[in-house]
Amino acid sequence: MFRTHTCGELRLSDVNKTTTLSGWVQTIRKFGSMTFVDLRDRYGITQLIFSESLNDKLEANPLGREFVLQVKGSVNERSNKNNNIPTGDIEITVTDFIILNKSLTPPFTIQDDTDGGDDIRMKYRFLDLRRQAVKKNLELRYAVSRSSRNYLHEQNFMDIETPFLIKSTPEGARDFVVPSRMNPGQFYALPQSPQTFKQLLMVSGYDRYYQIVKCFRDEDLRADRQPEFTQIDCEMAFVEQEDILQMFENLIKRIFKDVKNIDYTHQIERMTWEHAMWVYGNDKPDIRFGMQLCNLKFPAHTFPSQKDISSLISGVDFKVFEEAETVISIAIPGCCEYTRKQTDELTEWVKRPQIGMKGLVYIKCNTDGTFKSSVDKFYTEDKLKAIADATNARAGDIILVLAGAEEKTRKAGSELRLYLGQQLGLRKVDEFKLLWVLDFPLFEYAEEDNRWVARHHPFTSPKPSDIEIMINNNPVIDNPSEYLKHPYANIKANAYDMVLNGNEIGGGSIRIFQKELQQKMFAALGMDDQEQKHKFGFLLGAFEYGAPPHGGIAFGFDRLCAILGGSESIRDFIAFPKNNSGRDVMIDSPSSIDDKQFDELQIKLDLKA
Amino acid sequence: MFRTHTCGELRLSDVNKTTTLSGWVQTIRKFGSMTFVDLRDRYGITQLIFSESLNDKLEANPLGREFVLQVKGSVNERSNKNNNIPTGDIEITVTDFIILNKSLTPPFTIQDDTDGGDDIRMKYRFLDLRRQAVKKNLELRYAVSRSSRNYLHEQNFMDIETPFLIKSTPEGARDFVVPSRMNPGQFYALPQSPQTFKQLLMVSGYDRYYQIVKCFRDEDLRADRQPEFTQIDCEMAFVEQEDILQMFENLIKRIFKDVKNIDYTHQIERMTWEHAMWVYGNDKPDIRFGMQLCNLKFPAHTFPSQKDISSLISGVDFKVFEEAETVISIAIPGCCEYTRKQTDELTEWVKRPQIGMKGLVYIKCNTDGTFKSSVDKFYTEDKLKAIADATNARAGDIILVLAGAEEKTRKAGSELRLYLGQQLGLRKVDEFKLLWVLDFPLFEYAEEDNRWVARHHPFTSPKPSDIEIMINNNPVIDNPSEYLKHPYANIKANAYDMVLNGNEIGGGSIRIFQKELQQKMFAALGMDDQEQKHKFGFLLGAFEYGAPPHGGIAFGFDRLCAILGGSESIRDFIAFPKNNSGRDVMIDSPSSIDDKQFDELQIKLDLKA
Repeated sequence: MFRTHTCGELRLSDVNKTTTLSGWVQTIRKFGSMTFVDLRDRYGITQLIFSESLNDKLEANPLGREFVLQVKGSVNERSNKNNNIPTGDIEITVTDFIILNKSLTPPFTIQDDTDGGDDIRMKYRFLDLRRQAVKKNLELRYAVSRSSRNYLHEQNFMDIETPFLIKSTPEGARDFVVPSRMNPGQFYALPQSPQTFKQLLMVSGYDRYYQIVKCFRDEDLRADRQPEFTQIDCEMAFVEQEDILQMFENLIKRIFKDVKNIDYTHQIERMTWEHAMWVYGNDKPDIRFGMQLCNLKFPAHTFPSQKDISSLISGVDFKVFEEAETVISIAIPGCCEYTRKQTDELTEWVKRPQIGMKGLVYIKCNTDGTFKSSVDKFYTEDKLKAIADATNARAGDIILVLAGAEEKTRKAGSELRLYLGQQLGLRKVDEFKLLWVLDFPLFEYAEEDNRWVARHHPFTSPKPSDIEIMINNNPVIDNPSEYLKHPYANIKANAYDMVLNGNEIGGGSIRIFQKELQQKMFAALGMDDQEQKHKFGFLLGAFEYGAPPHGGIAFGFDRLCAILGGSESIRDFIAFPKNNSGRDVMIDSPSSIDDKQFDELQIKLDLKA
Repeated sequence: MFRTHTCGELRLSDVNKTTTLSGWVQTIRKFGSMTFVDLRDRYGITQLIFSESLNDKLEANPLGREFVLQVKGSVNERSNKNNNIPTGDIEITVTDFIILNKSLTPPFTIQDDTDGGDDIRMKYRFLDLRRQAVKKNLELRYAVSRSSRNYLHEQNFMDIETPFLIKSTPEGARDFVVPSRMNPGQFYALPQSPQTFKQLLMVSGYDRYYQIVKCFRDEDLRADRQPEFTQIDCEMAFVEQEDILQMFENLIKRIFKDVKNIDYTHQIERMTWEHAMWVYGNDKPDIRFGMQLCNLKFPAHTFPSQKDISSLISGVDFKVFEEAETVISIAIPGCCEYTRKQTDELTEWVKRPQIGMKGLVYIKCNTDGTFKSSVDKFYTEDKLKAIADATNARAGDIILVLAGAEEKTRKAGSELRLYLGQQLGLRKVDEFKLLWVLDFPLFEYAEEDNRWVARHHPFTSPKPSDIEIMINNNPVIDNPSEYLKHPYANIKANAYDMVLNGNEIGGGSIRIFQKELQQKMFAALGMDDQEQKHKFGFLLGAFEYGAPPHGGIAFGFDRLCAILGGSESIRDFIAFPKNNSGRDVMIDSPSSIDDKQFDELQIKLDLKA
């Protein structure tokens, strides 16, 4: 037996017990003839004392940092207690020890504030995983999965495994493919999600399915993307959107309770996609703070139901606003005292290529009720006051105004809002605000191909009221520059995203379950009958044999964990992540394969010069 | 809302309630002007009555088998109750209905005793999954996973996800590989198991890890193999073999209790590999019945500790036994009345190519104490009696004797025992007998390469007492025909298999955790330093930084479920299995990929003529 207790277990009530502990040497300190060692395992740290009598043995078997040590000894009360750790009241007086394994000096310190950089910690991930900070992340991850499984089990969901070696049906993201040795010339694909399989399970009558499952996308990796990632994947039959929203907001509330001990009892806010774009310029708004956008000017077809207030800024000879498609203002609370330097810096910030604005107009709403702006020569006090009122600005605020093309300006407004929210400390790490965004557009425009692509995926159903628009109109876009005026641009989907603190943590939809509508959808995306049959014949076939109404959702498990853990980086919540080139630098993968493997798979390299 | 109740929910106590149900039309029967429909969903079947008033609507909207139907109605007591189903006391008097979706006539009946053959059911798997028989299998599978997770959670195990895109290190089975677009010319491999990653987690201090995880092996598929399969994968640090045996026999007992309501309270039997081979000819013996092998003759080096009793059969001029390396007898209880036809049939059975024996000797132990054998002219009654005593035969038994080369004859003895056990009804589907097989050989001989391969895997540790043999002997085999005499042939491993009813359901080992021993092991398997570094450098590196003693086990989840479900076929317990060519005939995968995909991956086909 290697141990009778763990290093996190012993307390004052255990004093005088004999014990055997095993763990890693965290620190070694010498005081006179005594040696003090902090022994660490998964459960905690316990202080060991080696008295003088063991010095000969210690000299013959010197200890070092991260050595694996087994000690026998007795539990004693500490004279100088350590209140920072649960075992801080006791120490072990060692009577004998065995070095189970030695360790080289680690390339970085195994501490929360380690001295190791990202690269070295990725290479020695097995050492990085020893750090308390990383362990807490993986523990949180396990707690989230455990909580999800318990809730879904109680709600009668069944965990059903779907296959990993499936079929390549690239639509949207790229597939990872796997050559088949037994079927030369043919390939499997790794699933981007179990989407079609979970829909087949609904057709099969398993009306509540879930899986916590790996998915794969061969995309160029941005900072926070991984080629393999995990989803909490769910699907339900005989449901409407409202059933799903309620089921899964209760899942998230349960996770908050189980994992963070937060009672998220209030109603989760809901917002249409259109409203989110209108007041936040963003389909995953961070609603922890206000600073909503004011649409002083916008193209009529983008928000057909909204009131035009452009008269507030028109009728003066200010060309920037006259010529802009869209003008958006934001009131920044309590910042009317911004200096020239500060407004210049903000102007530079919006002019960066990532934002791409040409400039920034400001209006200071002075505390005395007067206004001072960068466009004073164009706008009277009265006009400035009217703009300030429309922007919901108060005395003491500064209003920032952006102008330009619709999409770019709206995005800039959103980015500027988030940037200033961050600067002003309004995005608190320990505050959690959930939001449902509803009624997404069914289609998005793909400029390179001048065609429609599915905003969510090709299995998402249109709103019942919009089905006629879809059936009665030709999807072909005659005038690319005016695609937003095409009837398809306004078709809304039965789709919903769950947003947490400005991050999309989950998304789903009510699915198409009628063969004809699914075919119409595929056709709208530019798939002819033959391609439909080749790629999705099995699904269209299944829809002929009694497919029930159904819908579902998938949560990005890595991201959900990261946000709950107060981090922006999913990598910190994955045991063995890959770097931005898709490499695992620890195991040095991907790597070359043998000639025999090429031979058996009947493929060869075709490297470009 | 699509339903207020499920089709398995309503009882007598619900009579007079109004209800809305949704489900599939199982059967339609007409009685006079009334229509009776059995409506089915995941939870059960409820009888519907459509009275005359709905006949017009039914005529305009005719129902068919597997149509998806929503009905509103009231719950009534049935006059002719159906005691076979929980809802058999009630029926729904339908007031209105909606056909949610139609169905073509299914290609086979959705019933336990379906008329569909294997191929058609695989192609229409989404319909096959509707059958109660298949649903029960998937429910059992979920129950096993749920039970395992609960037990392991209570025992402080953490579910930690390991990567799927790893590194190809073919040793034993073939890897599936995945070309990397971002790293042209390089490949990931899909894991055959998370073996090295779970060991790294032990090095990282996560002392109790588990995962229910997909694994991949690109092997030619035998009847009961799948290219992707699921393991319950576990690892523990600071443990000895006994800790692991106890932890995981309690896991299996818990599964028996939770899933089958079986109290498996008695001690799980344990047996060394040598003993299993000696008395069952097999390393995964079915101990539900006796009929142990008697080793009348065997090569001295194979079982060095066993007593030679070959004098019982020697000294007469029976060449078959004289020339045989091994002679094995089995007593078949109560079968001394076997006719000539029956013994001839058994002789033909052992002469089939799969068994490969040249013939069969029988000795009938008559109830009157006399003997009658096919070798009467060589053996006296006294000699026959001595053989019968050694075989533990009783009056009334028939003894069957096999003779030939050691490995083939032992295997034939095992096969014959299992065959006759089956014939005699001794292998009962509802009886479960667990067994630990211990002390496996560390190495196996690979004839094609004349070298050692790891019997379990290269990370399994030798018994401490055998480490010296390993270190002090050269692994090279000078004389291939006498490989069994090489010292490495007798090195025993700290390895263990859990066997259930003659099937290996799990296997594991205490691992090597010392770098030098791991290097010695790799070298014994024919890996030079460079290959070791290329394939397993990360593991050898990790062993330099304080690797703890550790060990683990992996259970074949698919097989465990199949046996618990009383089936020999794992395919029945997988939602979407592949056929023997590794094809998913439902989605038609694997399949061709686009030129664009070849181009991006920088590979091309190299098909053999």
